[in-house]
Amino acid sequence: MITLYTAPTPNGWKASVALEEMQLPYQVHHVDLHKGQQKESWFKALNPNNRIPVITDHENDDFTLAESGAIMLYLAEKSGKFLPADAKKRHQVTQWLMFQMSGIGPMMGQANVFYRYMDEAIPTAISRYHNECRRLFEVLDSHLADREFLVDDYSIADMANWCWVRTYKWSGVSIEGLEHLRRWKNSIEARSGARRGTEIPYKIVPETLQKAGKTLI
Amino acid sequence: MITLYTAPTPNGWKASVALEEMQLPYQVHHVDLHKGQQKESWFKALNPNNRIPVITDHENDDFTLAESGAIMLYLAEKSGKFLPADAKKRHQVTQWLMFQMSGIGPMMGQANVFYRYMDEAIPTAISRYHNECRRLFEVLDSHLADREFLVDDYSIADMANWCWVRTYKWSGVSIEGLEHLRRWKNSIEARSGARRGTEIPYKIVPETLQKAGKTLI
Repeated sequence: MITLYTAPTPNGWKASVALEEMQLPYQVHHVDLHKGQQKESWFKALNPNNRIPVITDHENDDFTLAESGAIMLYLAEKSGKFLPADAKKRHQVTQWLMFQMSGIGPMMGQANVFYRYMDEAIPTAISRYHNECRRLFEVLDSHLADREFLVDDYSIADMANWCWVRTYKWSGVSIEGLEHLRRWKNSIEARSGARRGTEIPYKIVPETLQKAGKTLI
Repeated sequence: MITLYTAPTPNGWKASVALEEMQLPYQVHHVDLHKGQQKESWFKALNPNNRIPVITDHENDDFTLAESGAIMLYLAEKSGKFLPADAKKRHQVTQWLMFQMSGIGPMMGQANVFYRYMDEAIPTAISRYHNECRRLFEVLDSHLADREFLVDDYSIADMANWCWVRTYKWSGVSIEGLEHLRRWKNSIEARSGARRGTEIPYKIVPETLQKAGKTLI
């Protein structure tokens, strides 16, 4: 059994989508970000960076690990799933996982800050992040033009990028004209494991967000 | 022999520091960012994201890999150095490598954009990134309070974070009062392999930058 400390965000979903897709048994501990629980000392002891997700693997001496990208690699090794056995392919999966960790994630995160959360409207910053996200989406789209998934079979690299890309509307980034990206996104959305993972720790109801003038996905 | 496509930036140094520390034979191909060579089609064929560094390993069927974090993991596996054999320790190293990829790197990168490169001064954005970088530095400092390196022995996680942290002045972020971070930074700076790595593809002379009113390190 694994304990997953998480909240309903793209980085949180990366861990729960992986757990669901790999069919690993786990229990969920919801860390309420609105209450600032990620800043409490018990959580800092789990992750000195005060960020979700974190896992504790009770089958492995309560081994505790933070950073969604590291968690995905750990779970893939534990389950033997969604990470190629072939070394070259495995390193290519790591490349596209890193592309999400260093590019898609941080840039969509900054778009969210300036486009969604900040009271002050700073057009230069908003357009900077919208442009950069669109550029990264185009990189994915081109790469997916002649392949079904990022590296051969569906892998943790696809899960990681998809957990962010699916929230493109929330970030205010268009996917218009990116038909390969859309096809790839839809094909992952159709997977029941991936979909279940995005309902952890609870299902976000789009209608609720729309009422608040917001559209998440 | 490995070919390293790189430029004098923290992400570029992550690859050259790793190569130097691991004593792997390599040749350097300087990608001139000022001339926009990273946008040329020959380079896009190596990395669809148009970003340095990229390696091609001629001892492994010309296997080509991008993303500095993925490159460091590849080189550590190839050389058998700076990545623990113990699985738990190895995953902890991956966690701190991901901390750099998703936190230190992107946030210092954004600080550089708003503090150094943008003509328009946007105080809200500058202070946002300075505060976030300082917070991340404090996470490193606390973690290093009772250990010499991030995870047991010196590893690729130390190299990765150090390549960015050492440029704190350029990003305009203070390390005042962070004595554990400073001790760690100085101890890596004292390593000849690490230092040689930061002089690839050429040595940046601080005096030149100071003349231009800039201080890199």
